[in-house]
Amino acid sequence: MTDPLHTGAVIGILGGGQLGRMLSVAASRLGFKTCIFEPGGDCPASHVANYHFQAGYDDAEALRAFAQAVDVVTYEFENIPTSALDIIETLRPIRPGREALRISQDRLTEKEFLTGLGLQTAPHAAVDSADDLGTALESIGTPAILKTRRLGYDGKGQARIMSPDEAGQALDDMAGSAAILEGFVEFTHEVSVIAARGLDGSVACFDPGENVHEGGILRSTTVPARLTPTQRSDAVLLAARILNALEYVGVLGVELFVTPQGLIVNEIAPRVHNSGHWTQNGCAVDQFEQHIRAIAGWPLGDGMRHSDVVMENLIGDDIDRIPAMAREPHAALHLYGKTACKPGRKMGHVNRVKPGKP
Amino acid sequence: MTDPLHTGAVIGILGGGQLGRMLSVAASRLGFKTCIFEPGGDCPASHVANYHFQAGYDDAEALRAFAQAVDVVTYEFENIPTSALDIIETLRPIRPGREALRISQDRLTEKEFLTGLGLQTAPHAAVDSADDLGTALESIGTPAILKTRRLGYDGKGQARIMSPDEAGQALDDMAGSAAILEGFVEFTHEVSVIAARGLDGSVACFDPGENVHEGGILRSTTVPARLTPTQRSDAVLLAARILNALEYVGVLGVELFVTPQGLIVNEIAPRVHNSGHWTQNGCAVDQFEQHIRAIAGWPLGDGMRHSDVVMENLIGDDIDRIPAMAREPHAALHLYGKTACKPGRKMGHVNRVKPGKP
Repeated sequence: MTDPLHTGAVIGILGGGQLGRMLSVAASRLGFKTCIFEPGGDCPASHVANYHFQAGYDDAEALRAFAQAVDVVTYEFENIPTSALDIIETLRPIRPGREALRISQDRLTEKEFLTGLGLQTAPHAAVDSADDLGTALESIGTPAILKTRRLGYDGKGQARIMSPDEAGQALDDMAGSAAILEGFVEFTHEVSVIAARGLDGSVACFDPGENVHEGGILRSTTVPARLTPTQRSDAVLLAARILNALEYVGVLGVELFVTPQGLIVNEIAPRVHNSGHWTQNGCAVDQFEQHIRAIAGWPLGDGMRHSDVVMENLIGDDIDRIPAMAREPHAALHLYGKTACKPGRKMGHVNRVKPGKP
Repeated sequence: MTDPLHTGAVIGILGGGQLGRMLSVAASRLGFKTCIFEPGGDCPASHVANYHFQAGYDDAEALRAFAQAVDVVTYEFENIPTSALDIIETLRPIRPGREALRISQDRLTEKEFLTGLGLQTAPHAAVDSADDLGTALESIGTPAILKTRRLGYDGKGQARIMSPDEAGQALDDMAGSAAILEGFVEFTHEVSVIAARGLDGSVACFDPGENVHEGGILRSTTVPARLTPTQRSDAVLLAARILNALEYVGVLGVELFVTPQGLIVNEIAPRVHNSGHWTQNGCAVDQFEQHIRAIAGWPLGDGMRHSDVVMENLIGDDIDRIPAMAREPHAALHLYGKTACKPGRKMGHVNRVKPGKP
């Protein structure tokens, strides 16, 4: 256990998107400076950070200079090249650690890790060839979904197989990448737990949120989620089991399917998570600050919420509705400073706060 | 009325202290970039801003370059040299406008403006000489307080006169500056209203907060304040009268004494105000975002609060209590990134949120 970081310490963040941006703002609230490593130039996080290294993840010299300029390194996305991490970790601690990245970078490894902990996942099988896919479809059945094992997000690198005759096309869609076939899970709804583990091993969870996806992209999160008290404590215990197994430091997102047979883990993300954005306006310590507290060796916030919140993502031309949303009472806007608007691009989100007593 | 600013527009802020820092963060939430003008180097606002002009207020070239780099100019303190404003206003709009600055830069002008609006102030008289002071003390009596007309803040440039024989010392303390004698007001408590006026003339107020000062420095603000419904609406109407008279654009702080004879205006500040920091954790749109919305031509937030809050300033070695406060439930820390701690220096604040229903 190292000493907690103090005012003026520098948090290094790999990735300059909106998650890095909001991590950076949270770090500033605790008196820290931030340093962003991001190949792109005018990236969302660079607008609010002290320092910005604009260089590629294959630029060893820049990675070394970045690591030397900061006190601790964290990241906003899980697909960081191993070679970059190898360089950084000789110089500064990386939190969360390598094990969480190794597991979450590969859907198959992740599923095996989760089932090894005694947690339920969707039925699945590795698919490296047409033969594998045939065998997998026989045991799992259709409908099913074929996914690349690595580098997929927001519904990319996925192909649905509604009947066995779609198998060939789905395999072609993987373009030769190692894949995993997942059976469909009959769920009533989807929730996620944003959980954190401190450097001292303490664990804190935010209240589970209920997620609605559209086209593979998160559309909204509502807190509280529809869960029985048992489901709620199951969700929290399950998240804690994952955190402890990984000796994790930081915030982790756990997506869960709610089914009559219990909670089934969909996937985990070793970082702050879109479904935790509601905490910005529902808790005294939000998920971004919680993550910074963890990696800085500070005590965790307790995760209690002071208000109910519905978070809506603003995707693509949803931003045309900003003038109207700016007039809504109790609506907190969070825009990412992206000037180019594309379909499917996350431009911001709005947290609609449901006031309590006052 | 000009068009509202959009994502990517740049807000120029004169002054790089904690108010500039929190304005900058709020601007980023709306997708704006910020540019700080501040003579000091490693200033709190520069940590979270896109651009920083480090130059003096007498550097005409830097002021011109700053103005040309931004879309609108605002400020975090009222004592900006007139010569600097003269340069900027030929290039970009300054919001709030010059009239608010002219009035609030001089305590006597401010008092005359307020009484001209039919508002109550402390009894007062201009003091430019020992004779003036003698005459003023005869009419106002003791105890009284002698203040420099210009450039005072947080209790600086003030001398108490408990009996007439202290007059000479008090006048010496002014060091030749034009001064104003103010009579003591018998008040039960002090409140402030954080009010805003948009570019379209609309007005919105946050709930009044109750302030406790120690040694001339704000110690805490509690919301809601102890006020009767009549006092509450008086406070809001009075703030609106000031805003409209100044054709103000932005957030204004109004400090009020609560007395059996009604509300007496202590002073106004043409900027975001320390007593409005509670809004960061009590409202969907806080005072900093409210100010940015106003100067950017956006609709104002409605000022409603979702939670009760007690704001405590962290002054000087109050920061030694941060580890303990970091463990408090529902406590939101806001540190300013200042590494040098001095007695009386504002290092941060903590908002203790009182949850409602959830």
